Amino acid sequence: MNDTPDTLLYLADPYSQEAEYGETWREHLSRLAPDIPFRVWPDEVGDGDAAAVRWALVWAPPEGVLAGFPNLELVISMGAGTDHLHGDSAFPSGVKVVRMVEPTLTQKVAEHAVMSVLMAHRELPMYLDQQRRREWVQHENFMVAADRRVGVLGMGPIGMAISEKLRDLGFPVTGWSRTPREIDGVLALQGPVGLDVVFAESDILVLVLPNAPGTRHILDVGRLVQMPRGASVVNVGRGTLIDEPALLSALNCGHIASAVLDVYDEEPLPAESRFWDHPRVIVTPHIAGLTNPRTASEYVVAQVRRHQRGEELLYVAEGF
Amino acid sequence: MNDTPDTLLYLADPYSQEAEYGETWREHLSRLAPDIPFRVWPDEVGDGDAAAVRWALVWAPPEGVLAGFPNLELVISMGAGTDHLHGDSAFPSGVKVVRMVEPTLTQKVAEHAVMSVLMAHRELPMYLDQQRRREWVQHENFMVAADRRVGVLGMGPIGMAISEKLRDLGFPVTGWSRTPREIDGVLALQGPVGLDVVFAESDILVLVLPNAPGTRHILDVGRLVQMPRGASVVNVGRGTLIDEPALLSALNCGHIASAVLDVYDEEPLPAESRFWDHPRVIVTPHIAGLTNPRTASEYVVAQVRRHQRGEELLYVAEGF
Repeated sequence: MNDTPDTLLYLADPYSQEAEYGETWREHLSRLAPDIPFRVWPDEVGDGDAAAVRWALVWAPPEGVLAGFPNLELVISMGAGTDHLHGDSAFPSGVKVVRMVEPTLTQKVAEHAVMSVLMAHRELPMYLDQQRRREWVQHENFMVAADRRVGVLGMGPIGMAISEKLRDLGFPVTGWSRTPREIDGVLALQGPVGLDVVFAESDILVLVLPNAPGTRHILDVGRLVQMPRGASVVNVGRGTLIDEPALLSALNCGHIASAVLDVYDEEPLPAESRFWDHPRVIVTPHIAGLTNPRTASEYVVAQVRRHQRGEELLYVAEGF
Repeated sequence: MNDTPDTLLYLADPYSQEAEYGETWREHLSRLAPDIPFRVWPDEVGDGDAAAVRWALVWAPPEGVLAGFPNLELVISMGAGTDHLHGDSAFPSGVKVVRMVEPTLTQKVAEHAVMSVLMAHRELPMYLDQQRRREWVQHENFMVAADRRVGVLGMGPIGMAISEKLRDLGFPVTGWSRTPREIDGVLALQGPVGLDVVFAESDILVLVLPNAPGTRHILDVGRLVQMPRGASVVNVGRGTLIDEPALLSALNCGHIASAVLDVYDEEPLPAESRFWDHPRVIVTPHIAGLTNPRTASEYVVAQVRRHQRGEELLYVAEGF
């Protein structure tokens, strides 16, 4: 052992955008917790420093790097999802992982999802296609929010925020989650029968589930067929939730009216993807959510303090 | 005088979409007010029928037609605005005009405006431009609704509905109107100083004013310069509110980040308009609001009943 106090490590894939934010995080973390040493990997981690690292704030760790910290006990994900950790097949066992839950991230994804639902509701993909062709055609549509049921698959903090905002705008909302939830004015369902109901009755379906066992291709041919003709799909969760060729077929045959997508099976979305120029698809480049170091630092420090005091951690991720 | 009871006339420009809705209106109106004869112009109006017409439901009347009904006392506009009546220079004097205020129309415009504000807030025009070029670039932006002040110019029933929905989503909202309003959590301003404040402090400006004396080109070069650099403009009011060449200049020099437009100085928007393919402009073909004959019929009957009983009319338009 050495004498360095317990240290918080910042570790991001050197090729990711997150690798550039070390100094921003340091600024906020050192203000909130001046007693906790903060080191940015790899520049500030020398040969003798590895043993002091007890906590790590992590994005997409390169294979095997985390295994080099023998006293690491807690990994705090820099994003809402934790699937970026699975790229490291040498991820140390016994290390706890918590997800990022912070107000800016939750609010941003919720705003993006509400915008996407409104765009599907108001047939924006069709009108944007008309704009490209300089075509002035008004399509009669008397439907208001109250006439469109929205299904929200995934009712964690983000799914709950989305459901509340949609409810406030007048949409009837059905939420589905593994664990029971209670939200005023939202129909909250669980289990396989609940899932059937959500698919069968959603005019607009919002996917907010994580990439986890059991969620891969949860929207496949069978589920698409279950959805009402003319329904729309919004994905702010993970690209793996959707069988993309099946969605394209459903769009092409007109069963699904439109899709507003922020995440994809492969990211960046390959240049040859049919989504880019599909007349009924809106493509954004995984920008719905963004962790804000300023607001997120409070969450990081709160989790570290809980760990220091031996208290129960919040938002522990499964599968590690 | 003849013996025909007081009659409600349906009169729409024969070249407009509204000309096709006579039977739909008849269905709803005859159910709600079976005692009031309903005639559709021109097919159902013979030589001896003109004198019986006391009320008229009107869209864009051809020049001089309304002057042929000597006992006409009330015109109910089929839309929220009444500028479509000004095309008739022989509009009979002394006839009262009321605007269309009905729940579907109000709700639809409000939903469209909220969607437009969210699109400006989340930089959708920029991302849609990237989609056209198959470009995957994520732009850092930590701003949430609370960080963007929205100004709403025009606080009639639609402007109030827009302000409430934006407030519920977390946007700070400043409303401006000629007559004082009170809405919880919305800064409501009046007068020329209030107008200066709205332009100077709105990150996103929503135009909901009617085409009326004093509103023409209310957003001109001087006002655009007053707005914060990087602000966005949403127009769901009337095209005449905006000096379009000035807005294009402000977009091209980057002072205005984006515009989400539903109405234009000339409609249909001419094929040669620069708005169609501007990378920072969303064009929809005047579809934000649509009067629903089903829900609007209750409003029409309520106004006719008030008139029959000699009660004060609601939403009387000025300038007639």
